[in-house]
Amino acid sequence: MTLPSPFIAALRDALPDASLTADAERIAPHLIEWRGRYRGQADWLALPGSTEEVARIVRLASAHGVALVAQGGRTGLVGAGVPRAGELPVSFARLRRLRALDPADGSLIGEAGLPLAQAQAAANEAGLLLPLTIASEGSATLGGIAATNAGGVHVLRYGMARDLVLGLEAVLADGRVWHGLSRLRKDNTGYDLKHLLVGSEGTLGLITAVAVKLVPATPHRSVALVGLDSPEAALALLTRARGALGDTLNAAELMPRFGIELAIRHLGADDPLGPSHPWFLLLETASGWAPARLAAAMEDLLAAEMEAGRIGAALIAQSEAQAEALWALRHGLSEAQKHEGGSIKHDIAVPVGAVPGFLTEALAAVTAQVPGCRPCPFGHLGDGNLHFNISEPEGGDRDAFLAQWEAVNRTVHDIVARWGGSISAEHGIGWMKVAEHARLADPAKLAAQRAIKRALDPHNIFNPGRILAADSL
Amino acid sequence: MTLPSPFIAALRDALPDASLTADAERIAPHLIEWRGRYRGQADWLALPGSTEEVARIVRLASAHGVALVAQGGRTGLVGAGVPRAGELPVSFARLRRLRALDPADGSLIGEAGLPLAQAQAAANEAGLLLPLTIASEGSATLGGIAATNAGGVHVLRYGMARDLVLGLEAVLADGRVWHGLSRLRKDNTGYDLKHLLVGSEGTLGLITAVAVKLVPATPHRSVALVGLDSPEAALALLTRARGALGDTLNAAELMPRFGIELAIRHLGADDPLGPSHPWFLLLETASGWAPARLAAAMEDLLAAEMEAGRIGAALIAQSEAQAEALWALRHGLSEAQKHEGGSIKHDIAVPVGAVPGFLTEALAAVTAQVPGCRPCPFGHLGDGNLHFNISEPEGGDRDAFLAQWEAVNRTVHDIVARWGGSISAEHGIGWMKVAEHARLADPAKLAAQRAIKRALDPHNIFNPGRILAADSL
Repeated sequence: MTLPSPFIAALRDALPDASLTADAERIAPHLIEWRGRYRGQADWLALPGSTEEVARIVRLASAHGVALVAQGGRTGLVGAGVPRAGELPVSFARLRRLRALDPADGSLIGEAGLPLAQAQAAANEAGLLLPLTIASEGSATLGGIAATNAGGVHVLRYGMARDLVLGLEAVLADGRVWHGLSRLRKDNTGYDLKHLLVGSEGTLGLITAVAVKLVPATPHRSVALVGLDSPEAALALLTRARGALGDTLNAAELMPRFGIELAIRHLGADDPLGPSHPWFLLLETASGWAPARLAAAMEDLLAAEMEAGRIGAALIAQSEAQAEALWALRHGLSEAQKHEGGSIKHDIAVPVGAVPGFLTEALAAVTAQVPGCRPCPFGHLGDGNLHFNISEPEGGDRDAFLAQWEAVNRTVHDIVARWGGSISAEHGIGWMKVAEHARLADPAKLAAQRAIKRALDPHNIFNPGRILAADSL
Repeated sequence: MTLPSPFIAALRDALPDASLTADAERIAPHLIEWRGRYRGQADWLALPGSTEEVARIVRLASAHGVALVAQGGRTGLVGAGVPRAGELPVSFARLRRLRALDPADGSLIGEAGLPLAQAQAAANEAGLLLPLTIASEGSATLGGIAATNAGGVHVLRYGMARDLVLGLEAVLADGRVWHGLSRLRKDNTGYDLKHLLVGSEGTLGLITAVAVKLVPATPHRSVALVGLDSPEAALALLTRARGALGDTLNAAELMPRFGIELAIRHLGADDPLGPSHPWFLLLETASGWAPARLAAAMEDLLAAEMEAGRIGAALIAQSEAQAEALWALRHGLSEAQKHEGGSIKHDIAVPVGAVPGFLTEALAAVTAQVPGCRPCPFGHLGDGNLHFNISEPEGGDRDAFLAQWEAVNRTVHDIVARWGGSISAEHGIGWMKVAEHARLADPAKLAAQRAIKRALDPHNIFNPGRILAADSL
């Protein structure tokens, strides 16, 4: 299935040459998702150079009934940005200007294709912080983090992308531009269109620019790694850390011994606390004021916990290099797992207080379902979001293991649902979880989501089939 | 126009006696808004005792085409909760249980009618903070603060109500209950229904319970009042305060000398810094950790500012009683203004950096439009939200002055729009600003809001005519 030629002809009339290509070599990288689970197809690629060009593309797509697939940094993991035959990918790679940065407001406005890392660097230069920290920040774009409501390791302090997005500019289904690049902190003028587009994965409109909130810089930090007996002990430590460290607490990352061992084996990491603890919690505090007090507060907390016998060994980084090394352990877990064969992944969240109970139940269920499998659950304890990943049995058959992906997903998602959790904490629904979303979402919510999609994208031209199956609308 | 008798008969069948009344004396307080601008009409009042009863009311209202008007603490200011003839007010006064409080999660779940102050007290007892601080918190309810996206004095640190709402339970137009009382921090499973209902002023569904986020307690605070030459000087101080105090900065409230004088004259307030400064900034920092450093950081900042000649006199509260007295000045401004005759009010926001420019332009415009009028602009400089209130000329004619309300509103709102601001920062649209919203909102946003209303409330039974005029749908 190719694009209708009258549509292509009209598009070529409407756009400058640089904004449309049929060059297979240039298109190729726009067809794959980096994890390799999705491969798409497209004969054409739109690369609009302005918001007005995006509006022209949308108007023509609407008139010709052609579906549009928005692409930012293409670091998604659920297939939302991979075009299928008959769809036109729209890359924001050429819309990447930093439009404004205002230190008095604490705001930055950038176009959809501006890489997150560049926006972060601009904020840093102004003595401020754009506090969204994700592994893919070098490639991920402002438009992408808004469209997918990106998360990361600092959510417990600063919230998700939606909590940082102040305003949007977007092209809606009728081709009109919504000029919503507000820098306001307070605006109660009817339904919040911004929060509807954030996290909509390109299915309600095309985001062309984003205004984000900047916060005071936190140049000083204290990073500690703590060895623990159990997730319960980690949760208890987290609760006391919140009390002692207040909102300087930046991150609280849970890691199992198995993950640390993989990082040692495959990435040459040091073994900072030795083999005697089954679980680890990485704590980070940061602040721009009272820097001298910061490390002391961490030391006081951990000394008291150790004295009370509630934690095992603990290591407080004594330098930035040591802090980086502790973080490298955490950031290396996904990479290290790749060396152990296939991995069935879950991006789930449960209420923070439910993490230990969920883990007990889910670990028992998956090891019963796939004997010998090696779970490596890790992630953001501070916001209840775990990457519940399961490596194949040692010496097992990779393909046979991965063939159980969906069955294992269903097992885990059922348990997540019982604990009041989310089957997609960070990555979204995309293609990957459409059926699971339809199976497990609250029926009233699902009906409302379908009504919203029909209302705002009546011809289903924006990323059809993602989030909600086309035949459910 | 009264309610159709078959509807009333069906309602009496469906509800226990306690959940429906025609007692005029009990109904009377449900017909007025406390500022006195709106007076409603109703022969019946529903007082559901459970979510299931709310669902029955919605199903019957839908079947009989009767409009429902949700009522929380009835502290709104724009008429959204005042019933018109033919509408049934639905009070949540009997749905007021605290359902759960989980310190590990930092979450609280309360029914829609639970007063905010009671929820705050429960959080405090658990050593946590529900950081929404509004003048009406004794009466305002959890359902009301969610439905209207309440703001208050701590928005610059903690955000609006929507930033604190984790989940909702609500009855949607088809009578189904959305069980969305999530306590999750991360949940990317399609369009965010919560953020759509928050701030919808009862026009998309009836919120029956709310899950809110609690944050670490901040038992220690430092409060200072600073005399300044101009709003520009206040903005410059705010910017430096953000740098020096980081996210311990809790509030930054701008007040004009005229307002302080009214508080002295009518409320017997002390004059803390004397008459020589035309503007004042109230600063508050608070923290639960490093308490000893807190007051010192405020002192360091203000000493440096004074030495550099950038601020006039400054007073740092030396006790909780002094801190309260400084806050009493700020909280007394609305009350004090009442003693000076009629007041034309605006609840507006502009980008923080635009406050001085906006003030210059708006003050010139209103004093040109109404010679002798006495503006008293005050409010939340830290988030750009000003209560731009204008007292009548001394010895003037109150009615003649108030007759210019809408004309003056239009003048001010036009200037707000030019500065990229909001004509309703905190209070919402309700009845009061429907025409101004339609006149000034971005056309694409307005079209999307209308499409959303039609999609989620197809028979227009929820608070019709509020936010969006019925004949615009």
